[in-house]
Amino acid sequence: MRAGLLYSAGKDSTLAALLLEDFYDVTLVTASFGVVDPDPAREAADALGFAHETVDLDPDVAGTAVERMHDDGYPRNGIQRVHEHAVERLASARGEFDAVADGTRRDDRVPTIDRPFARSVEDRFGVDYLAPLAGIGRGAIDEMVAEKLVVETGPSEAIAKADYEVELRALLAEAHGAGAVGDVFPDHTQSRVRGRR
Amino acid sequence: MRAGLLYSAGKDSTLAALLLEDFYDVTLVTASFGVVDPDPAREAADALGFAHETVDLDPDVAGTAVERMHDDGYPRNGIQRVHEHAVERLASARGEFDAVADGTRRDDRVPTIDRPFARSVEDRFGVDYLAPLAGIGRGAIDEMVAEKLVVETGPSEAIAKADYEVELRALLAEAHGAGAVGDVFPDHTQSRVRGRR
Repeated sequence: MRAGLLYSAGKDSTLAALLLEDFYDVTLVTASFGVVDPDPAREAADALGFAHETVDLDPDVAGTAVERMHDDGYPRNGIQRVHEHAVERLASARGEFDAVADGTRRDDRVPTIDRPFARSVEDRFGVDYLAPLAGIGRGAIDEMVAEKLVVETGPSEAIAKADYEVELRALLAEAHGAGAVGDVFPDHTQSRVRGRR
Repeated sequence: MRAGLLYSAGKDSTLAALLLEDFYDVTLVTASFGVVDPDPAREAADALGFAHETVDLDPDVAGTAVERMHDDGYPRNGIQRVHEHAVERLASARGEFDAVADGTRRDDRVPTIDRPFARSVEDRFGVDYLAPLAGIGRGAIDEMVAEKLVVETGPSEAIAKADYEVELRALLAEAHGAGAVGDVFPDHTQSRVRGRR
């Protein structure tokens, strides 16, 4: 069985891949608006021994999300919309994957995929949706990651990742100036996986 | 890290164990009111290569649950209460396990452990709570099970399992007659794991 997993090179999506790898042939898939290059995610996938692909997201979704985040003054609703769009794009690559997956966690407020949305994706696209971290809390995730992965952490600006959040920050800066990024995204520590322990 | 996983010999709790075994030293724990013997679960654990233990549940909780199910005419609320009690009993074996786990699934109405209860268990007992199937739907679970496990399925009466549902049926029959079991529990297919594929 083949699973495509939305991948950012962060610790959550990497741990999700490790949980699934005994059951699925996992491909790590970086969803992108084409704004930053997906090399950091590809490098992490190579170091971990997973195949890597990219999937294109719709620039209109980015535009709407950026304006929403700017108006809100916080990123939650914009990020949520983009994540749902990314899951749908991955799921619509019908035939390639039996299942689509992501690293959403129990304790995250956003992004989150609730049961009705998960079932809707499964019904509309004929795939299974898997969120292997949805029943695992932050503490256990940190312990599992510490046991299995080499991770680099730091402020968002300093950690080269390749996910749509990085792109949304870039698009927000472009549309509303660099100051808007600091206003919308509070201090935020990112993680980037370097390889297996 | 040591995890204790509530275990019935069914396919869900077995799959949960397989998902965790690369990360935790997993002990399968059968929660029991002392009404049926836990041999079927122990046999399954042996066949799978996991350690097996039992944990005693409070008979008063069984009594209350049986009356509740009889009054309701359906098992949901009684089962839910007993499952929460079993999670708490396992979690209270403090020191033995770093994490407690179960096989609750995304698509189950019952038992279910919601985020507030999960966090409450973690705070009160100083353990992590893990539900590795909480973000996985029924279809994917069936496929993962088919890939990894040998399973026997059949009506509840015909499958020898060792879980609190079997005990609640026995206690319900004792208190209200055999007919009460059929009234409260609709036709129900059970699974019992025989070993790894």
